[in-house]
Amino acid sequence: MKQLQEKILTDGQVLSDSVLKVDSFLNHQIDPVLMQAIGEEFASKFADEGITKILTLESSGIAPAMMTGLVLGVPVIFARKRKSLTLINELYTASVHSFTKNETNEISVSQKFIGKDDVVLILDDFLANGQAVLGLIDIIEQADAALGGVAIVIEKGFQSGGKMIRDRGVRVESLANIASLANGKVEFLEEVPAG
Amino acid sequence: MKQLQEKILTDGQVLSDSVLKVDSFLNHQIDPVLMQAIGEEFASKFADEGITKILTLESSGIAPAMMTGLVLGVPVIFARKRKSLTLINELYTASVHSFTKNETNEISVSQKFIGKDDVVLILDDFLANGQAVLGLIDIIEQADAALGGVAIVIEKGFQSGGKMIRDRGVRVESLANIASLANGKVEFLEEVPAG
Repeated sequence: MKQLQEKILTDGQVLSDSVLKVDSFLNHQIDPVLMQAIGEEFASKFADEGITKILTLESSGIAPAMMTGLVLGVPVIFARKRKSLTLINELYTASVHSFTKNETNEISVSQKFIGKDDVVLILDDFLANGQAVLGLIDIIEQADAALGGVAIVIEKGFQSGGKMIRDRGVRVESLANIASLANGKVEFLEEVPAG
Repeated sequence: MKQLQEKILTDGQVLSDSVLKVDSFLNHQIDPVLMQAIGEEFASKFADEGITKILTLESSGIAPAMMTGLVLGVPVIFARKRKSLTLINELYTASVHSFTKNETNEISVSQKFIGKDDVVLILDDFLANGQAVLGLIDIIEQADAALGGVAIVIEKGFQSGGKMIRDRGVRVESLANIASLANGKVEFLEEVPAG
């Protein structure tokens, strides 16, 4: 997605060979117009998958997921990273390790909101090692729901998550796929690998 | 806002005299169409305030804030509830105590995104004791920015936060203002108090 790639090039900050900071439009400050374009792009890509729910993870996945849900006409669920006092019963849970933050979170989704008749689109801001997506797939399997695909705003194509998820036969669509962050420079893969 | 009140009556769950659970459309599962209507309503109310940024708090404020930002044509910033490894420098911070969860979080906003020329609209999902809004006002004051108002999806009018913030001369607009949750029943204030 050209508009997103240009935004990454102008506003993203390469902090190391593996860390790209996009807190000016996605992870802390959000650009609503870009989120709308992202929502339309994902909705177009997954229009024929019969999606009934979108599942994301708080917090940075919420904005692009909500815009995609608006265009597809389906509800969005954000998995919580810890249990809250008003969400104590009947949860699907999974453990997700973050290599960036070097911590493991339990994520949870209320059993009320995903069931066996659902076709769920997983949507997240980044795909790197794939641990968050694996946790969300685990929850969809617990619910006996179908996985309709995985929608990623920015994939770090030089890390192993995308290959691991695609090797399971899952359709993964990323709107920007980064080949390298070496020497402080963002290089994109020309084409996203087929899902 | 009639559409929101009806949604609260049909889908909200009264857990106690002070706790209303709206996790089917706002706090866990999100209804994007309702968020769009909420965004249009807030944008209309604050259209003449010269808003340049919207400031909310992860996670439940993000969806309504993003829709409001889309209609007003301004960026949205979500304060983080703890420091992350990629956001370590140059932060405004404030402490926010949650009576519901009985815990205190440090919230933070990068100094890059709010400055003295900004007019900031605070937006949050709930207003009860007002501690989150006070923390966000603290951050706006640290930035020498102007406060353009406070937009609240659901106010618990029977708790003290709304009065406390309005007594400071701040314009507060809530789209549903709850007079009472007694006996398992939601009762709304007929009119939102003037800001």
